[in-house]
Amino acid sequence: MSKAAIVLLSGGMDSATVLADAVQQDYMLYALSFDYGQRHFSELNAARLLAQNARVVEHRVIDLSALGDLGGSALTDKAIAVPEHGGEAIPVTYVPARNTVFLSYALAWAEVLGIGDVFIGVNAVDYSGYPDCRPEFIRAFTVMANLATKAAVQGQPFRLHTPLMDMTKAQIIRHGSELGVDYSLTVSCYQADAQGRACGHCDSCRLRSEGFAAAGVDDSTRYC
Amino acid sequence: MSKAAIVLLSGGMDSATVLADAVQQDYMLYALSFDYGQRHFSELNAARLLAQNARVVEHRVIDLSALGDLGGSALTDKAIAVPEHGGEAIPVTYVPARNTVFLSYALAWAEVLGIGDVFIGVNAVDYSGYPDCRPEFIRAFTVMANLATKAAVQGQPFRLHTPLMDMTKAQIIRHGSELGVDYSLTVSCYQADAQGRACGHCDSCRLRSEGFAAAGVDDSTRYC
Repeated sequence: MSKAAIVLLSGGMDSATVLADAVQQDYMLYALSFDYGQRHFSELNAARLLAQNARVVEHRVIDLSALGDLGGSALTDKAIAVPEHGGEAIPVTYVPARNTVFLSYALAWAEVLGIGDVFIGVNAVDYSGYPDCRPEFIRAFTVMANLATKAAVQGQPFRLHTPLMDMTKAQIIRHGSELGVDYSLTVSCYQADAQGRACGHCDSCRLRSEGFAAAGVDDSTRYC
Repeated sequence: MSKAAIVLLSGGMDSATVLADAVQQDYMLYALSFDYGQRHFSELNAARLLAQNARVVEHRVIDLSALGDLGGSALTDKAIAVPEHGGEAIPVTYVPARNTVFLSYALAWAEVLGIGDVFIGVNAVDYSGYPDCRPEFIRAFTVMANLATKAAVQGQPFRLHTPLMDMTKAQIIRHGSELGVDYSLTVSCYQADAQGRACGHCDSCRLRSEGFAAAGVDDSTRYC
């Protein structure tokens, strides 16, 4: 039997790279995306296209509008402006407990599917300062998950794969380019337009653009 | 400033008791319930009534139909029969990763509200064998939560209060009766009717009925 895994797929460049990484490792893949009222809705269209191109077994888009409704983030609350300068320790684009909620759903779906392996594109180097992207968070979630489910209690361990954790943005882009990732399909911009074209000014655009330059890879991003 | 907390409120007898416990401790309360396509929808009506009677600041009912859609439980999948005999280690009424998902939302809302305290009515004695009701799960979730959020990283610790953890069902009922909980408002039955009346046969009804008998408290449950 072929090995199976879930990949968390936002439609951004990191998760697209993780998807390609898991494909190369010959996993039978299930893709999981979330609609939480994020500004960059075109990310979800990118996720759909990436999942289709990778021939995943199933792609689920979970409606998490309730998470966006709780507020507290520039990504879901139009009253908070998206920053264009960077420099904050944890920026207003942080969504409260986002990765905890995402991974909880992945844990639930993994148990239903009888799968123990989940891939997520978190990164502790060129990240935006989000606490739930750090290796200590990933380790603690794994410990908790292995106490949480019937599957774990009955001997099916839960494992999180974070192949990008220690890579710089430039290393991620080089790795993805070697795997054949078409980054023009991916959306990173916090305020991309309906066609998925990037603003070129927000924190996320800045990190992405600097990443291409540092990697020495042509920036295929579509800008407004 | 008065202290504030979130209470997870299912509408069952355990969470009703926890709510009364938190009220007695003089917390300013926010109630959190979940609609995940559970069979016992009348539980949610009970939760609304209990929250209203306790004069909570706000009661949120989060739509988690996506969790029910993932399947894997007799509580959300009509193709799986609700058991009436008990005896299994972990019964089919188990919902994959339910408490992990519930607590993740509580963590998100707590951060948005600037609150660190969350009450949950888990119980490791007369429980149904669910792994995510055990103290080791609660401890691991707390460790993870304190690494997950901006609030925790910036010095607002996250604490889970589990006042029922070590109580038998009979002790819970005696404790709640002393606090004035009206158990006729609560719904425990896995297949309660639209008016919240209990079947009297399922695992949950059995535990509840035995609890009243052992507590020496009149069983005010409304049966079909």
